Amino acid sequence: MAKDKKLVEAITSMEDDFAQWYTDVVKKADLIDYTSVKGCMVFKPAGYALWENIQKELDKRFKATGVQNVYLPMFIPESLLEKEKDHVEGFAPEVAWVTQGGLEPLQEKMCVRPTSETLFCDFYAKDIQSYRDLPKLYNQWCSVVRWEKETRPFLRSREFLWQEGHTAHATAKEAQERTEMMLNLYADFCEEVLAMPVIRGRKTDKEKFAGAEATYTIEALMHDGKALQSGTSHNFGDGFAKAFGIQYTDKDNKLQYVHQTSWGMTTRLIGAIIMVHGDNSGLVLPPKIAPVQVMIIPIAQHKEGVLDKAYELKGRLADFSVKVDDSEKSPGWKFSEAEMRGIPVRIELGPKDIEANQAVIVRRDTREKIVVSLDEIEAKVAETLETMQKDMYERAKAHREAHTYIAKNYDEFKDIVANKPGFVKAMWCGDEACELKIKEDTTATSRCMPFKQEHISDKCVCCGKPAKAMVYWGKAY
Amino acid sequence: MAKDKKLVEAITSMEDDFAQWYTDVVKKADLIDYTSVKGCMVFKPAGYALWENIQKELDKRFKATGVQNVYLPMFIPESLLEKEKDHVEGFAPEVAWVTQGGLEPLQEKMCVRPTSETLFCDFYAKDIQSYRDLPKLYNQWCSVVRWEKETRPFLRSREFLWQEGHTAHATAKEAQERTEMMLNLYADFCEEVLAMPVIRGRKTDKEKFAGAEATYTIEALMHDGKALQSGTSHNFGDGFAKAFGIQYTDKDNKLQYVHQTSWGMTTRLIGAIIMVHGDNSGLVLPPKIAPVQVMIIPIAQHKEGVLDKAYELKGRLADFSVKVDDSEKSPGWKFSEAEMRGIPVRIELGPKDIEANQAVIVRRDTREKIVVSLDEIEAKVAETLETMQKDMYERAKAHREAHTYIAKNYDEFKDIVANKPGFVKAMWCGDEACELKIKEDTTATSRCMPFKQEHISDKCVCCGKPAKAMVYWGKAY
Repeated sequence: MAKDKKLVEAITSMEDDFAQWYTDVVKKADLIDYTSVKGCMVFKPAGYALWENIQKELDKRFKATGVQNVYLPMFIPESLLEKEKDHVEGFAPEVAWVTQGGLEPLQEKMCVRPTSETLFCDFYAKDIQSYRDLPKLYNQWCSVVRWEKETRPFLRSREFLWQEGHTAHATAKEAQERTEMMLNLYADFCEEVLAMPVIRGRKTDKEKFAGAEATYTIEALMHDGKALQSGTSHNFGDGFAKAFGIQYTDKDNKLQYVHQTSWGMTTRLIGAIIMVHGDNSGLVLPPKIAPVQVMIIPIAQHKEGVLDKAYELKGRLADFSVKVDDSEKSPGWKFSEAEMRGIPVRIELGPKDIEANQAVIVRRDTREKIVVSLDEIEAKVAETLETMQKDMYERAKAHREAHTYIAKNYDEFKDIVANKPGFVKAMWCGDEACELKIKEDTTATSRCMPFKQEHISDKCVCCGKPAKAMVYWGKAY
Repeated sequence: MAKDKKLVEAITSMEDDFAQWYTDVVKKADLIDYTSVKGCMVFKPAGYALWENIQKELDKRFKATGVQNVYLPMFIPESLLEKEKDHVEGFAPEVAWVTQGGLEPLQEKMCVRPTSETLFCDFYAKDIQSYRDLPKLYNQWCSVVRWEKETRPFLRSREFLWQEGHTAHATAKEAQERTEMMLNLYADFCEEVLAMPVIRGRKTDKEKFAGAEATYTIEALMHDGKALQSGTSHNFGDGFAKAFGIQYTDKDNKLQYVHQTSWGMTTRLIGAIIMVHGDNSGLVLPPKIAPVQVMIIPIAQHKEGVLDKAYELKGRLADFSVKVDDSEKSPGWKFSEAEMRGIPVRIELGPKDIEANQAVIVRRDTREKIVVSLDEIEAKVAETLETMQKDMYERAKAHREAHTYIAKNYDEFKDIVANKPGFVKAMWCGDEACELKIKEDTTATSRCMPFKQEHISDKCVCCGKPAKAMVYWGKAY
């Protein structure tokens, strides 16, 4: 039992030091490892399997809306990156440059893609000729590089995995519809699959993507009261089309510029799962995204028939992702390990259970134990996973609601940001100067102007001038 | 009809110019596009969908043998690349170097991975401590970069997509077993799914992977009689383990070096599919890998009920991947297009067919047309796809056998290589000097020493000294 304890004690409690708790979970749940390459990490099997499940589910949802996958080069020649003015200003300071290929210096240096708008535009300029070629609904799964100074596993690293969708449309209206469709797809995915409630809204101009006309975002609240931008969808209007000359002939044989969007989700989502659902025993995975949903832990496995029965049970639970932990560790150690790794349900099965034709089901989130007849175990496991998924969402939503505050004036605002971790809803005049002042005074930033607007007051919380929108503010990752 | 013809006429015939035929197919079947990034290409939806299907099938087979997916950084610091002497000599001349990150020069330059042995070794050195940690059976799906001077779509490009498996074992025996297991897995995949027969064997020392103790390969014969190395599996022994210090404590508490393997398959396979099965009307896809297996082409689709019936038929064929081409093109154009894209089966359905409760099924490979009652169309489509898959394999195998020659002496050898495109089986003394001489005299290289050895003569075909092995020779991509 000493050993069992050690595994648990090795995690810092989240109340003591949330950042250290996070790092501990990431490491102890075997999600990542650090590498000799500064700012880059290894996705270990448990971490990568989460990404595979995210990919599978998102990819299915993308394809259902007509999206097709493609793959574009990882390199961008400097001249291509520079074609759209705002875009290059936003990204050039943080890219990695390749200057030598083989034994010779390159004539033109190339960066490793930090995002692929410029490559897609270069491609679309050739690929799109006529209105018949539209819309183009392309997506790619790849890794991108941004030369960050400070890095944290999943949340900010020099290389990360993501998908980037890039679409081209005949009209501004279609582009706007696609931008919102993908944002809603992201939000639904987070809520239905990751059990993570999100606020849907629009970024202020200050916070929008380099080169975009408008950026939409989903914002989630982490357990420590900080916000995490969890997915973004951008409407580019025809800005990139003009910079890259992407034109099509319409039905009246006139040349028109296309309207474009892009949208992305990244391995950051794994950080969000950890920080929304985790507890002081480690990771807690929503059943719908868990690579292993059920861990069967045999008790007294050396006794005759126990392991056979455990594997028989696994066979009966073929609708779920199930493993049997038949390693040589003690049951207590196995319990801790399954908890640390966030496996939604564990089933304890020993000689006495077998004799009584029963097993013990333990939920990871509530630790509730129920004794179940082996005759009805398939239904009980299904029910437990379903209830857990629902409860995790409700719990996260209740947490967010309990940590969402309203500020009617600047004193209230500053007080909340200083003392109550969470979202602050407050009115804003639309002036970037107020965003900058708020950030300087409090370190909070505007997270988004939610689609669901509320009227809190007539005046900007910062300057007192007439308000234009209600904004969610918060400290963010 | 003029337009329909044009689409087909645009392909060079393979008898006139195989290389140009290949380039035409790749472009006209909409698999790739060229880019502003020299030597790199865009995988368009039809090309990427092939890779997705290859991935899905291989990944399933890997996982069935206990392999887990991970993801390691794309960058390798120079000092890490240099740790294994043969390996760095093999790869350093053809890597892309990153020398600047953000606005500052890097203290140590890094290359973009050409392959990840060094990264996996660096990781394993930390991750492996005890015999309990073994075996490690990891794989990653990613892109790699090799700064090639001459490039060709799918066959040789500066960036390509692949999977690389990297395993670590307690014993030399286990490593050898895994090396062969993965080679056989690759071979079975090629034969069962891609309908592409392969020769399984071992590379000579001259042709083996930089740093490997032994390299195993599968070699396929293309339609033009050239060989294509289609997958490789390497046994590293403990060479990398010693260079990187990867040791574990065995059951007797003694420190031991691990034994390692690596194995990979790449987007080259798409080139192989094209060159093994394609014809002068374009691509011919084996049913088991085709992203679209059946294209329903309505005839006189403006007439009442035709499109409804076509979509009803699609619904009934839900076990397959089916599309209805309801675009405004003429049926003849649609036929040519479906042929160009290699869609295994097309179904023609017009008002007269509907009246007669029938449809016309056309096989892509033989162009055989059969009229089928709509009552039994599911079974007929299934049967046609199955037969086509089998026939394509048999046809490719017959082609290979018809283009495999035996050379008993050097005159015969030179004559065959000069005049009969294909494989040449001939004996070899084991001396690299003979390989070099043969390459210089004929441009043929040793493809592999097949597992299935045959005794052709006692003497090396080149020098006449005692022979050690029968070797497959050929000109190669």
